[in-house]
Amino acid sequence: MCRWLAYAGILIAMDTLLFQPCNSLIRQSLSAQRSVAPTNGDGFGLGWYGDIAKPGLYRDTMPAWSDANLRSLAEQIRSPLFFAHVRASTGTATSRLNCHPFRYGDWLFMHNGQIGGWPLVRQDVEGMIRKDLYRHREGSTDSEAFFYLALGNGLMEDPASAFALTVAQIVGKMRREGVTEPFRMTAACTDGKRLYAVRWSCDGRSPSLFWTQGHVDGCRDGRVCLEDGTDSVMVLSEPLDEDASHWNEVAEGSFLVAEGSRVTVSPFQPLG
Amino acid sequence: MCRWLAYAGILIAMDTLLFQPCNSLIRQSLSAQRSVAPTNGDGFGLGWYGDIAKPGLYRDTMPAWSDANLRSLAEQIRSPLFFAHVRASTGTATSRLNCHPFRYGDWLFMHNGQIGGWPLVRQDVEGMIRKDLYRHREGSTDSEAFFYLALGNGLMEDPASAFALTVAQIVGKMRREGVTEPFRMTAACTDGKRLYAVRWSCDGRSPSLFWTQGHVDGCRDGRVCLEDGTDSVMVLSEPLDEDASHWNEVAEGSFLVAEGSRVTVSPFQPLG
Amino acid sequence: MCRWLAYAGILIAMDTLLFQPCNSLIRQSLSAQRSVAPTNGDGFGLGWYGDIAKPGLYRDTMPAWSDANLRSLAEQIRSPLFFAHVRASTGTATSRLNCHPFRYGDWLFMHNGQIGGWPLVRQDVEGMIRKDLYRHREGSTDSEAFFYLALGNGLMEDPASAFALTVAQIVGKMRREGVTEPFRMTAACTDGKRLYAVRWSCDGRSPSLFWTQGHVDGCRDGRVCLEDGTDSVMVLSEPLDEDASHWNEVAEGSFLVAEGSRVTVSPFQPLG
Amino acid sequence: MCRWLAYAGILIAMDTLLFQPCNSLIRQSLSAQRSVAPTNGDGFGLGWYGDIAKPGLYRDTMPAWSDANLRSLAEQIRSPLFFAHVRASTGTATSRLNCHPFRYGDWLFMHNGQIGGWPLVRQDVEGMIRKDLYRHREGSTDSEAFFYLALGNGLMEDPASAFALTVAQIVGKMRREGVTEPFRMTAACTDGKRLYAVRWSCDGRSPSLFWTQGHVDGCRDGRVCLEDGTDSVMVLSEPLDEDASHWNEVAEGSFLVAEGSRVTVSPFQPLG
Repeated sequence: MCRWLAYAGILIAMDTLLFQPCNSLIRQSLSAQRSVAPTNGDGFGLGWYGDIAKPGLYRDTMPAWSDANLRSLAEQIRSPLFFAHVRASTGTATSRLNCHPFRYGDWLFMHNGQIGGWPLVRQDVEGMIRKDLYRHREGSTDSEAFFYLALGNGLMEDPASAFALTVAQIVGKMRREGVTEPFRMTAACTDGKRLYAVRWSCDGRSPSLFWTQGHVDGCRDGRVCLEDGTDSVMVLSEPLDEDASHWNEVAEGSFLVAEGSRVTVSPFQPLG
Repeated sequence: MCRWLAYAGILIAMDTLLFQPCNSLIRQSLSAQRSVAPTNGDGFGLGWYGDIAKPGLYRDTMPAWSDANLRSLAEQIRSPLFFAHVRASTGTATSRLNCHPFRYGDWLFMHNGQIGGWPLVRQDVEGMIRKDLYRHREGSTDSEAFFYLALGNGLMEDPASAFALTVAQIVGKMRREGVTEPFRMTAACTDGKRLYAVRWSCDGRSPSLFWTQGHVDGCRDGRVCLEDGTDSVMVLSEPLDEDASHWNEVAEGSFLVAEGSRVTVSPFQPLG
Repeated sequence: MCRWLAYAGILIAMDTLLFQPCNSLIRQSLSAQRSVAPTNGDGFGLGWYGDIAKPGLYRDTMPAWSDANLRSLAEQIRSPLFFAHVRASTGTATSRLNCHPFRYGDWLFMHNGQIGGWPLVRQDVEGMIRKDLYRHREGSTDSEAFFYLALGNGLMEDPASAFALTVAQIVGKMRREGVTEPFRMTAACTDGKRLYAVRWSCDGRSPSLFWTQGHVDGCRDGRVCLEDGTDSVMVLSEPLDEDASHWNEVAEGSFLVAEGSRVTVSPFQPLG
Repeated sequence: MCRWLAYAGILIAMDTLLFQPCNSLIRQSLSAQRSVAPTNGDGFGLGWYGDIAKPGLYRDTMPAWSDANLRSLAEQIRSPLFFAHVRASTGTATSRLNCHPFRYGDWLFMHNGQIGGWPLVRQDVEGMIRKDLYRHREGSTDSEAFFYLALGNGLMEDPASAFALTVAQIVGKMRREGVTEPFRMTAACTDGKRLYAVRWSCDGRSPSLFWTQGHVDGCRDGRVCLEDGTDSVMVLSEPLDEDASHWNEVAEGSFLVAEGSRVTVSPFQPLG
């Protein structure tokens, strides 16, 4: 299991959310509160949009809490849309190539959860990835495979349908292999303009997911200063502070879209 | 704070103690039971004696729990005397150069604890290191500085006196600087023949330290098979399993020497 | 392109061949003499047999020339059979998972060369890997894929035939995709008892490969002391010193088998 | 020996100079043209100024040529003042802590060269560093020690004098120890506003250093588009392309100051 955070809104320095809050993502790397694994020290990653369409990517295998480079980048870089992820491996190796987010063209994707029986269904799932996309696969995670399969399923044109089809395809493969372990996921993707997130599991026990909207005015004493407004949206595995009024749970089986100041949460179901 | 383990005795594969026990050192890297810091993920190190006088050294910055190389080395290498250490930084950077054990000639040294006010006394302490030894200092930790200072104080000739003098010198520097934070340590060193360990603090709150002696006959179901005998000695931050009869606490203010089947524990006091 | 070395024979410390010769493998990592790429600094790996059937594995992403751990391991570990590899990437990422040798059960495999048009044929080649083997694939290299495909083709039962079939399958895929870049390889594998090596290319321009047999009596002044005898065999990308009498070129299209003191070199052709 | 580049001027994406030119700094990491060591693969570093006074810092131990993170940061980050450095160790370990640039407050420093007899004079030189600065020293290089010694000598108030005094102090120590190896250096430092660089050696054999001024309009076909103007200054170990008209050698014994559009090069001599 892992922990992640997605932000879209006014330009802010990334450390405002990644380092400063009392339950910041970096703090979660050492001791997450709502995660199956309290320690998320098997690498991390940062993806962000700047002056060009292609997002930046910084991933490494150290625990996020001890990487001086990450701290410096988060202090320096101001971005209107960024993804951050701290990893707790569910079996695959600690390697930059297995760290989220994954990037394809202008898109970023990150994921928390597990495809049950991944070793059993992996080869088949990989075989379904569109050939021209497959050459970009670098690691061995279920997460990266999901992304490339979804890209071939039209993620860039209709994300909700692509997610629904991709989950259905994988669940189908799991069924054919007789896998009894569950499929559980939270995931986010973006093209640098719209932010999409999904929470779904086959057994109603998805990893935690929250969202909020407001005007981010920095962070003080470990609390995010979230004022009235609609200019910023966060979707994240855990609340960043203890102010319960800020953080809304994303319900099981939901698909969230944030575009500008408009956030919609709709029911999500695998196709068919 | 950190966690460490020293073994001397019959030839055993290192993973017998490092990976197999239920509270193995590698398990302690993820969730130590008796440590101020439960997570010891800021690098690790392994020092061992083989066919040559100079010990081997393997240190890296990944958490010990996720390093496939460490697992393979521990499985492969059988040694009659080895040191292993998992690190939780008390402020200095995560770097191979700051990982224990440290090696000088045929000697190994490792340490857990803290020299109070280290940033204040560091330059003076380093200035006291014997000039020909100083060139071997690579990192910035108090631990490595202690080792080189002790080497110049005769560690290789009379370890107990060298420890007593070194602690006294450092405590003196701390006093002169008005440091109020305590000096607390457990440490071990060896020349490949004798094993020395010390537990001391200025305030009676040293990190935990245990020792045992017996005949190690592998590890089964997470328990070290420690049979009657005197051929093996372990000194370690935490018991490796829950069999309380196996593990003796090293008292505050003690100096332990293990040579062949003879183990002596004497009171330890800084000089003067 | 990469450089590699395989040794089988009497027990020797690995640094005898890896560090001491004037054109040692570690020297080749910085400036190889017979390689397309003079710098082989994109990671390295070491596989060796010790007291258990499963070989040890140490791989990392630093250049071999600057890794203090590698130096220490090579000094300490004495082995009767070991593989070492320094990597120059042909496109895939620098990652431990892409470093050679690769291990499966008691087997090791390493490779130098390139499957032409790999991005085009990769998905198909991976799809041909036997399902129970596929779950062990961790990286994205053509080398690792070749190994697992060969394992499914009977590598452990009849290596020569498995190589012949695997090369034929891949060349077939290349042809179907209209790939014009060549297939060129040198590779070695072992079960810890017999050592197998192959040199083949579709255009007669395989990477360099040499072999020798004798009694290794250490290394002096940068020259391997190779005395009369049959107890040790080396197969390697480049001679380790300038003593031309020592090193025999393995001809294009050859398959070498070394078992005990017997070395046979036979013609090699892809199947069919 | 190492290679470095400093840029000050209009906002540009860092990859314009670091990756795109035919003899870019990253190219120099693999095969420098005017360096004693053609391979500068022992780590690298990037320091840059953005929206806050404190500069950003990204340093790692991989060769610059194979680090995907570096490529992404260089593409994304636009900066009006940045330092980049690729390292070839002269003896100290490959570690992030030994990678340039070094940062203190708002200042950056980087260096190429060698203090002759460093192991002999190190402890004395470190002892001369101002106490409150010494706690920031993390590694063991002569370069970092020079920086902190110079800071205590007034680098932030009068850089030229601080360099002159620092060199004189170190040369004095070398003389007292009977060191016969030379002191040779090129170095650069900045507070984010002015850029300072020095080239000096005791034997007239300093590492190469060049500078240029103009208007940087991107990079085309491997050539920096350097048009008429005064808005940008580069100081660097090697020309980035073969257009000889662009690059002026900095003479031995020179001190360069660039502030806005004004560049002055004055003679440099150690004090006294």
